[in-house]
This record gives sequence, structure tokens and C-alpha cells, in this order.
Amino acid sequence: MMDQIKLGFIGLGGRGAGLAALVADMADVHIAAVCDVYQDRVDKTIERLAAKQAHPPEGYLDYRQLLARGDLQGVVIASSWTTHVEISLAAMRAGIYAASEVGGASSIQECWELVRVSEETGVPFMLLENCCYGREEMAVLNMVKQGLFGELIHCQCGYEHDLRSEITRGTENRHYRLNNFTYRNADLYPTHGVGPMAKMLNINKGNRFTALVSMSSKARGLHEYVVEHLGPEHSQIDTQFAQGDITTTMIKCARGETILLTHDCSLPRPYSRGQRVQGTLGIWMEDKNALHFDDFDGERWAPMSEYLEKYDHPVWRDFINDGVRGGHGGMDYLVQRSFIDAIKAGRQTPIDVYDSVAWMAITALSEDSIACGSAPVPFPDFTNGKWIRNQPVADNYWSLDGLYEGVSALT
Amino acid sequence: MMDQIKLGFIGLGGRGAGLAALVADMADVHIAAVCDVYQDRVDKTIERLAAKQAHPPEGYLDYRQLLARGDLQGVVIASSWTTHVEISLAAMRAGIYAASEVGGASSIQECWELVRVSEETGVPFMLLENCCYGREEMAVLNMVKQGLFGELIHCQCGYEHDLRSEITRGTENRHYRLNNFTYRNADLYPTHGVGPMAKMLNINKGNRFTALVSMSSKARGLHEYVVEHLGPEHSQIDTQFAQGDITTTMIKCARGETILLTHDCSLPRPYSRGQRVQGTLGIWMEDKNALHFDDFDGERWAPMSEYLEKYDHPVWRDFINDGVRGGHGGMDYLVQRSFIDAIKAGRQTPIDVYDSVAWMAITALSEDSIACGSAPVPFPDFTNGKWIRNQPVADNYWSLDGLYEGVSALT
Repeated sequence: MMDQIKLGFIGLGGRGAGLAALVADMADVHIAAVCDVYQDRVDKTIERLAAKQAHPPEGYLDYRQLLARGDLQGVVIASSWTTHVEISLAAMRAGIYAASEVGGASSIQECWELVRVSEETGVPFMLLENCCYGREEMAVLNMVKQGLFGELIHCQCGYEHDLRSEITRGTENRHYRLNNFTYRNADLYPTHGVGPMAKMLNINKGNRFTALVSMSSKARGLHEYVVEHLGPEHSQIDTQFAQGDITTTMIKCARGETILLTHDCSLPRPYSRGQRVQGTLGIWMEDKNALHFDDFDGERWAPMSEYLEKYDHPVWRDFINDGVRGGHGGMDYLVQRSFIDAIKAGRQTPIDVYDSVAWMAITALSEDSIACGSAPVPFPDFTNGKWIRNQPVADNYWSLDGLYEGVSALT
Repeated sequence: MMDQIKLGFIGLGGRGAGLAALVADMADVHIAAVCDVYQDRVDKTIERLAAKQAHPPEGYLDYRQLLARGDLQGVVIASSWTTHVEISLAAMRAGIYAASEVGGASSIQECWELVRVSEETGVPFMLLENCCYGREEMAVLNMVKQGLFGELIHCQCGYEHDLRSEITRGTENRHYRLNNFTYRNADLYPTHGVGPMAKMLNINKGNRFTALVSMSSKARGLHEYVVEHLGPEHSQIDTQFAQGDITTTMIKCARGETILLTHDCSLPRPYSRGQRVQGTLGIWMEDKNALHFDDFDGERWAPMSEYLEKYDHPVWRDFINDGVRGGHGGMDYLVQRSFIDAIKAGRQTPIDVYDSVAWMAITALSEDSIACGSAPVPFPDFTNGKWIRNQPVADNYWSLDGLYEGVSALT
């Protein structure tokens, strides 16, 4: 186990810079290098980290130069969606653990490429799916493992987040969402929803996604927002957005479960990931913040708070005792720790390349399905059959190091 | 306007007998005839109605004899799902207004047959979709019409009702659900969910359903219930249920809206129709019993109760003032009154044959889609193009007589 590791951060927009600042406070990490295509972001991040570390990081405009340093054990990639894969592949080829911020895949081919390069180099790739580390998600995972829901049958989830302001101001804020919503029509952001569900359903560990079908509504929310809030002189006033306001996706699993995903970012609404976990013995609904079990009398919903006390995941018990840190209610901290601990132990990441690409692929597949009139689309088996033998390992999911089943040492 | 009409009731199980008792209390209706294939049900209903009417109804075992009486203006058909259409067709051919209890269609052909016979005879057919008359549904319809949600984009709804006991005991309670769940795999019961949504979306009045795709989960709930609760000697212990526990259906509309339906009857859960209405200016969620609008600050949900006071449908204001009567929170009463008032006025029913078959057809189409691996299935235009010209009529939806737009006198 290494005492301190050296990390690089690539992509220093709001997300990347924020994560770097969070990680710079960790005693066992030194952020040695940071990179962005914009010089002002590089300068600002160096200044911000100089106040937190004994030595400030070096700055780069080209990620290839950062990867060529030769002293980094891992990189955190928070660049634009469509550059995650290219940079991750280069990092693995350089022998550096690659952690990518979330986002959907543009093609199935790039998913396969991540698998191939991770397998050939033996270097892990981890999607930084922070929602897998949410308190509620981990408590429900704990309940699933303890059998409270019986056999799982159906899950629902989504990304329901009013991003009209951020998307339509993409030119001002240099955000890649704008172009994606302008030209694509898909579940552009599936992983926050599907990640926790995939872990509960043991995807790639005795189960897998087999097919998917998607449908999008018309696109009205973004244009109406531009007209109402940004005015006739705005750069996007004539933009015809391809992305439907609501995209719904149904996924079938090899063991017969179904998952329903909603992508909902361009209409007014409070935030929700719309999660629901339903089995033969019970149901959890995030939007009700409540559960129902088969032995309840009648129509009763029990508030989640009653169950959190008893079923908080041990990782979260410790986290609460130690003091919750980091953004998004603490899950940003846990997902970074999980990546860092894997590097320090020379181990596979708890979200591995198979998990990552299965979740990311939903974007490309849903795009295909919608383009073909909601045709069902087969889901690639990125494990090439290994999902059948990879069974969940029950006894190592309790620690953060071995947070989820199936985490194994690198061979 | 007739002072009193004569009705027949066909199908006297729990639902039919209950509705007959409700209607028998109405001064402007005389139930002249009742019918069931089981003599005990006929006898029991006659006895029950004899206490409510000056003259008891006559009893029949064959609906053809009931229809041949020649004195009935309308019949309420609450027989088994798969006999609704046959009896409705015979009633219309006999010149009798036909009201059918809810249920899905077995084929697209029988939907067309209802349309053809209603058009040829000029006799209305009405699906008794009581949920169109629910207080919340009518208040939300009112809000939709007043523009609170802006342009509608997406609706969700369903039938989420734990019926494990009723379904698995189908042999004892002579209920047809058992056979449907044993041999079919579809959204067997779409109309409670989709009826109110179709009215809000002006289906068949300037809009229509264009395509549908469905997916079912594995079937576990019913068998597990039999094993756990009914024991090894029960008649259904070896039954392999075809019906998946959760069936999800996505519908696309001509004007670009999407509808998501859930059929969920064989897992433990409190009752819900899971409704959600979402437009460019707001969202209603039944499961939160709350609304959010674009002009709210931040993440606030307003409780539905705040809006019910202001936006209760006029029909419901009157109903509450007069005293809510009848089952299912009053909506059973309203849907019967709506049918009866149409007969008395010699008018089209507010849920007409096109509405009815569009909603019923979802069962047959979802069965096709699932059988073909979640293939998209085209939705028939049962109006043969008339939906384009049939525009909603805004100014006659306020009265119960003209409850919904597009209600017109029979020609």
C-alpha cells in the first residue's frame, strides 16, 4: 500500500476544479499535474491548489504532455463528454489508472475500445459514478443484499434535472451540453440513474443488460426558455434542438428484470433521480421517500428515515461518524476515495471497465433506438461471456475498499 | 329529455351488482332487467334491487333475451373482459346505448368492429372509465385547459394494484383475471391510467396515438404468493403465469407527446395510478400528491390540496356541495350519471367509441409488442382521419352533460 499517490486532473471546468480542490485536502494524495484546453482554467486551478498543497501542481494545455510525465499513478478526467474516452484510453496505455467523470458513450465501438485497452494493459478504468455512493442508494443496496425486497423484478431511475439555464447558455459558459442537446436525441445522461440499479441487479456479475428500447417526446422546453428568458438577440434564438424534452428507455436484463430510465433536463421541475426498486417482497420509491413491504398492513408506506437508521450502509455509518465531506451530499468524496484506495492497493476499481461501459453504452443505444422509431436494440455483452461466471461476492462488499461485490485484486 | 329511462345490467359479479345498486337509487332510472350466467347472482341482484325500486327487475341468464325485450334505452355491461365487446355489439345492433365496464381489447379487429357498428347504427358505445371522473384527474384537466402546464410534453400513468389474492383465487371467486394472467403477457388493464391522460392530450380531437412499445419483466409474484399463502394443495400451485409482474408501455402521440404506462398487479405495493402530467410550465405527480410550476422559487413542490381548492372542476364543486356518493371516491357515480344523461338527452356519450377503443387497444398492441421482443407497433387510427378535424370544443366541457370537449348531439 502506497503512502501517498500522485494524481493528475484533466478538465478543469466547474466539476474538475471542484473535485481537484476536494482531493487536494487528502493527506495521501498529491495532485502533481492539472490540464485544460483553456489557460485561464489551468491558472485558476493551480492558484487554488497552491493554497492546499505543499507544492502546487504543474499546468498543461495538452493532456498528452501530462500523461507523458511518467510519475502519475492515476488521472481524473472531467473534460467534455466526447473526450472522456480518448483521454482514458491514452491514460491506460501510459499505465495510469483512469477515472472518468460521468457521461454517455457516443458509440458502441468506443465502449469496446475501453474494454480492449483495459484488458490488454491490465490498467483499470473507472466511471466516477458518485450516485453509487449516495446514502439512500447504499442503504437500499444493503437492504437488497439482506433480502428485504425478495427477488428483484423491476427498477426505475433517471436524471430529472432542470438544466435549461445551463444548457442554453452553453456558449457563454463553454459547456458541451449545448451541442449535445442541439444535435442528438438520446438518453444523454443515463449513468446517475442506472449505476446504482446495475449494482443492485448484479449486472456483469451473474446478470447483464440484453436489450433496450427508447422513445423521446417532442423538444419544446429549451427553445421556449431561450425565447422567454434570453431574448431575441441571444445566440440560441434560432436553434432547433434535436433532443426531446423527455426520453424514456426500457432495458431488459438476462435474469428477466426490467429497468425504466427517464432523461428529463429541459422542463421545469425539482431535481430527482426517480429511483424505484421493486421485488417480490417490497418496494422503495425515492419520490415518496418511503418503502412498503409485504408484511405491512394494507396500504402503508414507511418513511425512508425509519429504515435509514437500521440499514445505513456501514461505509455511511463511518462516514457520518467521521463527518460527511465533499459535494453532492458526500458522495463525491466517497467515489474519489474509492478510486484512490484502489490505486493505493494496486487493485481493480469497484466500478470496473465492464460496469462503466455497460452504463455509458445506454446513450449510444438509446440514440440508435430512437433514430429507428423506438426499435429494440440488442445490448452488447462487453464481458464476452464472463458475466455468467462472475458471481457477486457477498462477503467483501462491506468495506469501502471492497465496496461492491466482485472487486478483485489485479492479476 | 326523457323523465325516466330503462336500463339493463349484464354481468352481476361484485362490480355489476354494486353499480346496479348505485343506479337503482337514482329517481330517473328504472333498472328493468338484469342478467348473469350464474343464477345465484341474478337472484341476489333482483332481491337487492327489489328493496330500492317500486318494481324489481326481471332476471335473465342469456343477454340476448334481455336485449330482445325492446324497452331498454341502455345497458351497463360488467361481464368478463372477453365478453364486453360481443355484448356491446349486440346492444348497439338492438338500438340500445352500450356502456362497457373497463378492460383491454383482445384484438384490434374487435376494436374496429365496435367502431363500425357504432357508426352504422348511430348508437353510442361508452367505456365506463370512472377514473376520468376522479377529483384529482378533473382538477388537473381543468388546470391543463387553463394553461397552467403550458404545452403538454409527457404523461405517466398506470394501474399499480396488488391483486395477488384476487387473481390467484380466481377459481374460487369465478374471476376471469386468473386466466388472463395465466395465458397472456400485456398491459391487461390500461384504461384507468390512459383515459384521463388521453382526455388531457385531446386524443382523437386533434391528436392521436401513433405507436406503442411494451416490455414485461419476469413473472414471479403470483407463483410466490400461491406458494407462501395458499399452500401445496391449491389449484394454482403448478400454474406457470405468463403475465410479467411489471409491464411498461411507451406511447407516442401525433403531436409529439409521450405517455408512459405501468401495469403492476402481482407484487406487494400500495395502490397508485402513478399519474404525472408534465408540460413546458409545470408538472403534477400523483405519487407526490404535489405540483411544481415554472415560476416557483427553486425546488419547491406545492401540495395538491392548495390547488384543489382553486382548480376543482365545476362538476366536482357541485358534487361536493350536493354530497359525494358512490364507490371509488364518487367517480363511479359520476361516470354512471354521465352515461345516463347522454341517453336522456339523446346525445353522444362524453367517452365515445373512438376514445374507448383507443384506450382498450393498448392491451392487444402491447401483447403484440411483447410477443415480438418489444418491437414498436403502429397504432390504428380508429377515426379514419377524422381526428384531424375533430378539434376540442373548449366551451362545453364545463357541465357534466358536456363534461369533455367534443361532445356533440347525435345526428
